[in-house]
Amino acid sequence: MATLITNGTVVTASDTYEADLRIEEGRIAAIAPRGKLPRDGADLIDAGGKQVMPGGIDVHTHLDMPFMGTTSSDDFATGTRAAAFGGTTCLVDFAIPQKGRPMREALEAWQAKAEGKACFDYGFHMCIVEWTEQTPAELDAMVDEGITSFKLFTDYPGVFQIDDGAIFRALRWSRSRGALIQVHAVNGPATAVLVEEAAARGDLDPVFHGLCRPSRLEGEATSRMVDLAEVAGAPVYIVHLTCAEALEAVRSGRRRGVSVYAETCPQYLYLSHDDMARPDFEGAKYICNPPIRPAWHAAELWRGMRSGDIQTVATDHCPFNFKGQKEMGRGDFRKIPNGLPGIEPRVPLIHQGVVDGHISLNQFVDLCSTTPAKLFGLYPQKGSITVGADADLLIWDPQRTTDLSLAHQHMSVDHSLYEGREVRGGPEKVLVRGELVVDGETFHGRPGAGRYLRRKPAFPVS
Amino acid sequence: MATLITNGTVVTASDTYEADLRIEEGRIAAIAPRGKLPRDGADLIDAGGKQVMPGGIDVHTHLDMPFMGTTSSDDFATGTRAAAFGGTTCLVDFAIPQKGRPMREALEAWQAKAEGKACFDYGFHMCIVEWTEQTPAELDAMVDEGITSFKLFTDYPGVFQIDDGAIFRALRWSRSRGALIQVHAVNGPATAVLVEEAAARGDLDPVFHGLCRPSRLEGEATSRMVDLAEVAGAPVYIVHLTCAEALEAVRSGRRRGVSVYAETCPQYLYLSHDDMARPDFEGAKYICNPPIRPAWHAAELWRGMRSGDIQTVATDHCPFNFKGQKEMGRGDFRKIPNGLPGIEPRVPLIHQGVVDGHISLNQFVDLCSTTPAKLFGLYPQKGSITVGADADLLIWDPQRTTDLSLAHQHMSVDHSLYEGREVRGGPEKVLVRGELVVDGETFHGRPGAGRYLRRKPAFPVS
Amino acid sequence: MATLITNGTVVTASDTYEADLRIEEGRIAAIAPRGKLPRDGADLIDAGGKQVMPGGIDVHTHLDMPFMGTTSSDDFATGTRAAAFGGTTCLVDFAIPQKGRPMREALEAWQAKAEGKACFDYGFHMCIVEWTEQTPAELDAMVDEGITSFKLFTDYPGVFQIDDGAIFRALRWSRSRGALIQVHAVNGPATAVLVEEAAARGDLDPVFHGLCRPSRLEGEATSRMVDLAEVAGAPVYIVHLTCAEALEAVRSGRRRGVSVYAETCPQYLYLSHDDMARPDFEGAKYICNPPIRPAWHAAELWRGMRSGDIQTVATDHCPFNFKGQKEMGRGDFRKIPNGLPGIEPRVPLIHQGVVDGHISLNQFVDLCSTTPAKLFGLYPQKGSITVGADADLLIWDPQRTTDLSLAHQHMSVDHSLYEGREVRGGPEKVLVRGELVVDGETFHGRPGAGRYLRRKPAFPVS
Amino acid sequence: MATLITNGTVVTASDTYEADLRIEEGRIAAIAPRGKLPRDGADLIDAGGKQVMPGGIDVHTHLDMPFMGTTSSDDFATGTRAAAFGGTTCLVDFAIPQKGRPMREALEAWQAKAEGKACFDYGFHMCIVEWTEQTPAELDAMVDEGITSFKLFTDYPGVFQIDDGAIFRALRWSRSRGALIQVHAVNGPATAVLVEEAAARGDLDPVFHGLCRPSRLEGEATSRMVDLAEVAGAPVYIVHLTCAEALEAVRSGRRRGVSVYAETCPQYLYLSHDDMARPDFEGAKYICNPPIRPAWHAAELWRGMRSGDIQTVATDHCPFNFKGQKEMGRGDFRKIPNGLPGIEPRVPLIHQGVVDGHISLNQFVDLCSTTPAKLFGLYPQKGSITVGADADLLIWDPQRTTDLSLAHQHMSVDHSLYEGREVRGGPEKVLVRGELVVDGETFHGRPGAGRYLRRKPAFPVS
Repeated sequence: MATLITNGTVVTASDTYEADLRIEEGRIAAIAPRGKLPRDGADLIDAGGKQVMPGGIDVHTHLDMPFMGTTSSDDFATGTRAAAFGGTTCLVDFAIPQKGRPMREALEAWQAKAEGKACFDYGFHMCIVEWTEQTPAELDAMVDEGITSFKLFTDYPGVFQIDDGAIFRALRWSRSRGALIQVHAVNGPATAVLVEEAAARGDLDPVFHGLCRPSRLEGEATSRMVDLAEVAGAPVYIVHLTCAEALEAVRSGRRRGVSVYAETCPQYLYLSHDDMARPDFEGAKYICNPPIRPAWHAAELWRGMRSGDIQTVATDHCPFNFKGQKEMGRGDFRKIPNGLPGIEPRVPLIHQGVVDGHISLNQFVDLCSTTPAKLFGLYPQKGSITVGADADLLIWDPQRTTDLSLAHQHMSVDHSLYEGREVRGGPEKVLVRGELVVDGETFHGRPGAGRYLRRKPAFPVS
Repeated sequence: MATLITNGTVVTASDTYEADLRIEEGRIAAIAPRGKLPRDGADLIDAGGKQVMPGGIDVHTHLDMPFMGTTSSDDFATGTRAAAFGGTTCLVDFAIPQKGRPMREALEAWQAKAEGKACFDYGFHMCIVEWTEQTPAELDAMVDEGITSFKLFTDYPGVFQIDDGAIFRALRWSRSRGALIQVHAVNGPATAVLVEEAAARGDLDPVFHGLCRPSRLEGEATSRMVDLAEVAGAPVYIVHLTCAEALEAVRSGRRRGVSVYAETCPQYLYLSHDDMARPDFEGAKYICNPPIRPAWHAAELWRGMRSGDIQTVATDHCPFNFKGQKEMGRGDFRKIPNGLPGIEPRVPLIHQGVVDGHISLNQFVDLCSTTPAKLFGLYPQKGSITVGADADLLIWDPQRTTDLSLAHQHMSVDHSLYEGREVRGGPEKVLVRGELVVDGETFHGRPGAGRYLRRKPAFPVS
Repeated sequence: MATLITNGTVVTASDTYEADLRIEEGRIAAIAPRGKLPRDGADLIDAGGKQVMPGGIDVHTHLDMPFMGTTSSDDFATGTRAAAFGGTTCLVDFAIPQKGRPMREALEAWQAKAEGKACFDYGFHMCIVEWTEQTPAELDAMVDEGITSFKLFTDYPGVFQIDDGAIFRALRWSRSRGALIQVHAVNGPATAVLVEEAAARGDLDPVFHGLCRPSRLEGEATSRMVDLAEVAGAPVYIVHLTCAEALEAVRSGRRRGVSVYAETCPQYLYLSHDDMARPDFEGAKYICNPPIRPAWHAAELWRGMRSGDIQTVATDHCPFNFKGQKEMGRGDFRKIPNGLPGIEPRVPLIHQGVVDGHISLNQFVDLCSTTPAKLFGLYPQKGSITVGADADLLIWDPQRTTDLSLAHQHMSVDHSLYEGREVRGGPEKVLVRGELVVDGETFHGRPGAGRYLRRKPAFPVS
Repeated sequence: MATLITNGTVVTASDTYEADLRIEEGRIAAIAPRGKLPRDGADLIDAGGKQVMPGGIDVHTHLDMPFMGTTSSDDFATGTRAAAFGGTTCLVDFAIPQKGRPMREALEAWQAKAEGKACFDYGFHMCIVEWTEQTPAELDAMVDEGITSFKLFTDYPGVFQIDDGAIFRALRWSRSRGALIQVHAVNGPATAVLVEEAAARGDLDPVFHGLCRPSRLEGEATSRMVDLAEVAGAPVYIVHLTCAEALEAVRSGRRRGVSVYAETCPQYLYLSHDDMARPDFEGAKYICNPPIRPAWHAAELWRGMRSGDIQTVATDHCPFNFKGQKEMGRGDFRKIPNGLPGIEPRVPLIHQGVVDGHISLNQFVDLCSTTPAKLFGLYPQKGSITVGADADLLIWDPQRTTDLSLAHQHMSVDHSLYEGREVRGGPEKVLVRGELVVDGETFHGRPGAGRYLRRKPAFPVS
């Protein structure tokens, strides 16, 4: 079973050129100038006027996740289907152990959530929510299972937060396996005091979720993580960076040679703090953590992507329905489930940054696919258009209009954050390991087609 | 009982001018051009060719302090006497409560140490070593007792360290009383891991005390404190700042309008990391915390004083004899009592910075006396040459050579950190509340002459 | 003839204290606690509830200056009278030589303008508008005449601009005499291209004066001057700094130890770019060079004063009437005389920064009086409250309301930039060398009372 | 005529993967997994254990250039041959017009130098050494000839320097054609004063060449160029960036979104200021402009490459023999021809940065080939391994030792800057448009095989 993609313009993280591609057994089998590859029984996809690029990789999702007394509204079936419609063909979700319980249990639980449901390939990060004498051995075992990245929290005191000593131990350990420590970097204890003060004052509307989380507290924790990584001699990855202060911390680290990497998300680029103040509790739809910042931060984030100081864009996809879920927090913002839908519109929203002149076309591919693959041990199987790579591909129409309203959305959630908003560019066709899974408005994929990805360490052992 | 100081050049934090001073009842009673004040039975001090400046104020001392299984070797009698020889006429020491015990107990204990011994006036800072529901009420009571500054530690995990939530609560509380939070800012938990690793490797010589405490970990904690102060809307004071990284954090805060103040100490200006590597365990003499840094940091600290980003110079005076005390750590740097003698040579060492062109003469006075007085609620009673102020005065000889060797030293400790080193400038005469306490090599003061200073809050209540 | 000022609070650049002052022969003759000085036939000024501070010193004025085909509307008589009403008691104006003509000629011309007219003491800076082989000798001669500061321009190509080589030579020369080089720092040649482009497009309204002068071009030239001063090993003084970019350049220099000083002006703190867009050609009233910036820059400038990175506030006073003068540029912004009235409201406007919490009371005195005196060789004769100093003093009422409207203004110009604006604080009485020149609304001074000040070099010869 | 490269690892600016390549008619005709391409009569190159990467592109050379009374010692024949031995397969040299003479004359002169001599393809930048009314039309004509980049000088006053107004005009013009302005950014006029002072003191040894050119003066001019580019809204390219100060200026610009690009050269990474002080006039060999800096700058430059703030590495190849050429400056450093040999060892020296852990393998390719091709309008014909691209390829042996001593060097110059130094990695084979030109130690190329490259504008017209 072969496929030939002809007449397209291939776009990778560094190259843009005209070429035809042949796909065999789910992989890229040949690249040649237009018209030079024989049909030879292959299915034909005419990509004339279109771009051929690696499928998007979303390295920050929370599908089917229990949180704050409810569960995120997309599971691996609905979530991956919606993602594919948006041009994403691979994801890495977070397995979260319970305190006092082994990591392996969490891994098995999350594998059970995904198996038979995921429409495309997936991996897992593991969270470290406590540090005990057994932790290093557990981490070693996880690396053997193909888990090579581990998330820590400086936030959620009493729940997920671990202290700086444990974070530093995790960073030191990571060097021994070439693993990558990811951090949700916000000063949780200070935040908690501000939340407590607001509650004591009776300030319980959704907007206070944001007002109690000043961007400086994210900048602080990000700077702290960069510093600890520098001293530990280990790389570190900042998840969902939202603000100028945190970006400045990342820049400072990179300038002095620290291997610090930063991820942002589309909600921090297109929405703003003011959305949390929408009337009639509509603001609750925009509650996530870290919160969405005043609009000027977004311009800084785009500049950060342009200058290479932000390397990936993921989604932190964690949708909750307004009805029945977000509404749990009516009258008390502390009870609004934190999380937003985002897995579907990510790639088109970042492409709009190309249209708007913020980033180049190659940077767009790099941010959405290639660098995520490289940092998380999936490259070159994923994230590249190179012979031998999995044929997870987009036939991208740079002229198409993508409407982000609820009516055109496939995620399992009852609202859109971008109602009425259109962007330019979108995937005309989406291939997963050579199979056409999305063709215009039609889904040809199937739950269970996705496989678990055993990821390699992306960093040298030292 | 009056005194007339004639023919001198008065030097204050901003002014330099020729004038005579009349002192009555321990206070400055008149300032007039040379020769214009009648003698009128007053004692006469001819300050011809000399400078008349406010006595030094040392706002960071640890006299008679139990620490690491021993006690600092100067008490309030020997310490204040030695201080006076160096040109210091007022100090603020740290009272340290035991965990689970009331602050008042610590205050009483420290007052007992000082009473009947101190040769000049003194105040106390209080340490906050835990945060409970009772803490705010205790702090309020301390302010009523004239304690308006409170020190916290991000270092010494398990001993003095309190977490960021408690620090943030302390900062928020401080606004309600106009009090000042001081921080020993080093990332203690990460330091502890490095110490543990060094010990596991058998690296136990004194120099590893320094090598396990990279300056970046001080920079980190300093930056964190600045950020927390900014969000809290409160001032913050960094004690014993030693390095470029921490200075940069302070600068960044001041640039954005945060009321952050920084103190450095002479050991960080004149000694270096290499001193800890002196052979025959001599390095132990140079063990303090934070450690003394590689020499290039000192140049940055002088620049910080010059540009106004460092506002005070104190000593962290905490002497231990080499024999019997420092020696406790032979074979294991972790057991070397942390602390250095410094109360005596501070003022001459900073004056040398004027000679060397690092700072101006007025900045010297400001750093050693006026700004300490202002920040800690002693101004204008202390730290100024203004009518009505206490006549704590130096008749300073800018040409005199001061030998800092043990043979010329008055501190109760068996070694000098500056053996063989001479600086230019020193006090010819020292007056405390109008009384001549030092006259050349002769001490005329007496233990018990010093009084407890009830300090005012230096900041507006907000 | 003596005067006694009683019951006031003395405020200097570093001190605030209660004291009485005796003035004899135009100088401060004694300072003593309240009630301790005998009346002894002296005139009495009761300063109860008031502050006694050094009179303001305006080190950037252009009185009676021919410019752009007209002459600034205040001469030394009207200008110093208006200044006194606002609390300024000393100024330094700019003598400007013609190209090809000796500096001495300019000095004589400016002395002629001032003599017999100035109501208080004055000095002159000299401009360097070309560099020839004779220039160093001319500069030496000027220093001998009491001119110890020299202004250069990177702006006004073809008129005042001199090239970087000449600027560097001037900086090198300044070391030999301890003189201070001042720079009007804007990239003139690039500005000229933007102006030419605007004119070619027909964009000739007043607001284009500002739009053709982006703040980055001031930041550029300021940074350049800091760099040249660093390499030359000489101090440098930036006149009329207006924007965040230039402030950042100054900060960077000070951080690395460069002796760079910066002056800002009230118009850059209280007015904004938008004023240039006022309808009916009203915008012309707000045309000066460098232009007034978008409002956010002002917040940065206040922070710069607070952190000590801006050291002086002057006015660049250069008023032109709207009728007949500003109107010359109707239809072509290039012909609007550049300059604003400001000599009168400076001190009250900066005091408002104390009221608003931007700076401290002592910083206010330092910015308006003491540091200008120090940098320009007038200290301690001017700018201080010390015995022996000239009794140029303000009896300042911190509670008074000062109305800045035209109706209350004494400058010789037909409009106010602050029409309808009130600030808190103003001088109740103003003394010049011990003489009461302003008492409430009454002027007791007289033209010709002011003397030429031979200024000393403020920097060491190196 | 076809060639098959098998068993190699393809390395591009973003990808590393195993693949075979087919070359036809000088171009890459197919890329397929190992063993999948039929031999089909093609020549076979077995790249087993080797890397296949785009040939190096040197965008800063001065072959056969008259300068300082002599001519650089490599012409287009010897220079391109030596370059090929080092792994460079394309270059862009500088055509330099004489003042008062048309640019076309310079272009023709340089084309005459290259034609019939160059062993591989070449293009030209044009220098702008004056700005007249005719200049824009001349520049337009040059773009039509395939010259899309133009170099300006802030250095060499009276020779090449043009003023900021002209530079700003050039930047503004560049937008109209999508051209790129390159700048040699050093403050020439200040440098000239320092040189004059040194000469007056009799300090004429080679090391004074460096001492008179402090890095701050390069930082200044670089910052100025970034600022002018920002205001002009045009991209700018800094040639031969050497120091931390200039890098900081570039970073600052990129952080705020300015399209500033920076080039460094191997001499600034591996040699140091101290080399200029070598005895017996040996220091003259190391004289170039800007000079080589103290060694710590090199670490900053590597960090700049790693963080993406430096985008290209070129050579500024401009060799002069020690005998007869460098010797012209015996006794007077001002007469030493400025310039170094470097075209041959560039690629191996930058590869050593991969070995040393400074940069990644993909960054190495990007710095030496891909980004130079993109910025100067040669991409994707040059600088990429994509189907359809010119087969300018290296079969790179990452394990090979390359000896940089004179005995192994092919450049026409009588000394090596790296005598006795070895690096790891070097080209085993070099192909130019599919032809094998270097095979181990054997040269198969021929003078005249190279063609003039008409370059496209790399930037959008705006």
